Amino acid sequence: MAIQKVTLDKKFNLFSEQWKPKIIAELNDSHVKIAKLKGEFVWHHHEKEDEMFLVLKGTLTIKLRDQDITLKQGELVVIPKGVEHKPVADDEVQLMMIEPKTTLNTGNVQNERTALPEWI
Amino acid sequence: MAIQKVTLDKKFNLFSEQWKPKIIAELNDSHVKIAKLKGEFVWHHHEKEDEMFLVLKGTLTIKLRDQDITLKQGELVVIPKGVEHKPVADDEVQLMMIEPKTTLNTGNVQNERTALPEWI
Repeated sequence: MAIQKVTLDKKFNLFSEQWKPKIIAELNDSHVKIAKLKGEFVWHHHEKEDEMFLVLKGTLTIKLRDQDITLKQGELVVIPKGVEHKPVADDEVQLMMIEPKTTLNTGNVQNERTALPEWI
Repeated sequence: MAIQKVTLDKKFNLFSEQWKPKIIAELNDSHVKIAKLKGEFVWHHHEKEDEMFLVLKGTLTIKLRDQDITLKQGELVVIPKGVEHKPVADDEVQLMMIEPKTTLNTGNVQNERTALPEWI
């Protein structure tokens, strides 16, 4: 299949549901995902996987046990494996994530917020 | 060390040289890098590594042997391992890349354009 570019805005226009990451690309052992978030997620960590969050629109706070990290558009953070975190967004955020293909969104926790990502 | 966010604009303000990728974050086996590009790079490929390009400012054309892919702000592409490519930018582009820590910018070619990336 021919190599195709991805236009982020177009991908975000394809869905409205929140907290359901969508895969937009793969490279090496990782997936590139996008998601819309609003509200509070659950505390969780990933045993073996670092996770990168890049905010494309809005403001996202990632609560850690010892600090809050607030990301605006054009800001990113890597949450290292093992570090408990909880994303919180007062208003809807558009987010890009990069993480290993094995990463579950709720990490060590599996509950009704657990979502298997689909390609979009 | 405390986890710290990265503000892309601030990082881009720290350097002006072109074609010298800077590392801004690491996750798992990958580095997140930024670069400023203008002009033509060399044809090259990466034997074992897929490489992601996300344009943050400007317009970047990635020439492949069978097509040109033109990326504007908010567009990305993954160049799979083994695929020859040549980035070209008429005006300065601000770029984010994600690639394995082992990736050399010139891939299979080593010449005066080869640059070992430094943290910024």
